[in-house]
Amino acid sequence: MTPQQQFSSSLLETAVSELAKLPGVGRKTALRLALHLLRREPAEGEQLGLSIIKLCNEIKYCKVCHNISEDEVCDVCSNPRRDSSIICVVENVQDVMHIERTGQFRGLYHVLNGLISPMDGIGPDQLQINSLVERVKQSGVVEVILALSATMEGDTTNYYIYRMLRDTGVKITQLARGVQVGNEIEYTDEITLGRSLLNRTPFGD
Amino acid sequence: MTPQQQFSSSLLETAVSELAKLPGVGRKTALRLALHLLRREPAEGEQLGLSIIKLCNEIKYCKVCHNISEDEVCDVCSNPRRDSSIICVVENVQDVMHIERTGQFRGLYHVLNGLISPMDGIGPDQLQINSLVERVKQSGVVEVILALSATMEGDTTNYYIYRMLRDTGVKITQLARGVQVGNEIEYTDEITLGRSLLNRTPFGD
Repeated sequence: MTPQQQFSSSLLETAVSELAKLPGVGRKTALRLALHLLRREPAEGEQLGLSIIKLCNEIKYCKVCHNISEDEVCDVCSNPRRDSSIICVVENVQDVMHIERTGQFRGLYHVLNGLISPMDGIGPDQLQINSLVERVKQSGVVEVILALSATMEGDTTNYYIYRMLRDTGVKITQLARGVQVGNEIEYTDEITLGRSLLNRTPFGD
Repeated sequence: MTPQQQFSSSLLETAVSELAKLPGVGRKTALRLALHLLRREPAEGEQLGLSIIKLCNEIKYCKVCHNISEDEVCDVCSNPRRDSSIICVVENVQDVMHIERTGQFRGLYHVLNGLISPMDGIGPDQLQINSLVERVKQSGVVEVILALSATMEGDTTNYYIYRMLRDTGVKITQLARGVQVGNEIEYTDEITLGRSLLNRTPFGD
């Protein structure tokens, strides 16, 4: 037996190797998952397998905002009650879900599918930035909210998008930086604290 | 949207629900796994899905020892260089792998597929105990090693098997209980310490 073929069945070996490719799943966990599936009804494992295959082969993305979608255009983009004059630019589909859960946003989204990161070899052309610029130019967009992470990659991407859009006349905003709700002043870093002093808001807002 | 249908695609929803049935995987982790699969090539997800389906539908168990096997009889049972007069009784297939890795055992195995546990409604008939008794009666087995966990369920199962086998004349042994290698005496519990005193072995063994 080679180190790879350490199980008494090649079916088990293959399943463990495939499961171990998932993020945060090592070979030990993969074996635990595989043996769990073997203890259940075969139909249960089949459902799991089929759902993964269908997910990977049949998933669609909204052709407007690039969010995961059931149809050509997603529920948010096709909802007439949403404000199509405001576009919130996010890194990925998780961020759309996250912002939707706040219940504070009634506009549309634009999913970049990543951030500009020269270190990882990701340039603007690999992201949905050109389609954002097209979208802003074509439709009656009034405001673009940059809702990217407060990291170097986020800031770089923010600045790139700002440069691409500044001549279109659209209002460009970004998420407020400040003391996190629930955090103590003592443990807030100095840059954040400085920004939140500069951008202080009227009491009661 | 209902609480269950919280994603913008039913394909994603189904995959997340199925993944979240795995042990130690909540909905948040399941979503992370699903989105990871979407970022990879579709072929990668297909391989994972197919490997799970094949595992659950086509897995075979050795008809002698009930370990997971490629063929009707597993590699261990069909290996002429293994000592077929000693049977090591274990709870599950993981324990077979665990003992194989020690390199200390050259006999055969018998996988019970669980332990007697009245609390969980598991009685002797749901386990491979009768087939163990048959096996001991039919072939030239000299020794049965009970290698079950040192828990109440393990002890109960040990005693049940002992009663079933004591009239067959086979030698019945169990794993030595004692101070764990690498452990300090100070942190060894009293029952273990007492047992390891009673069952002390000649120095140098």
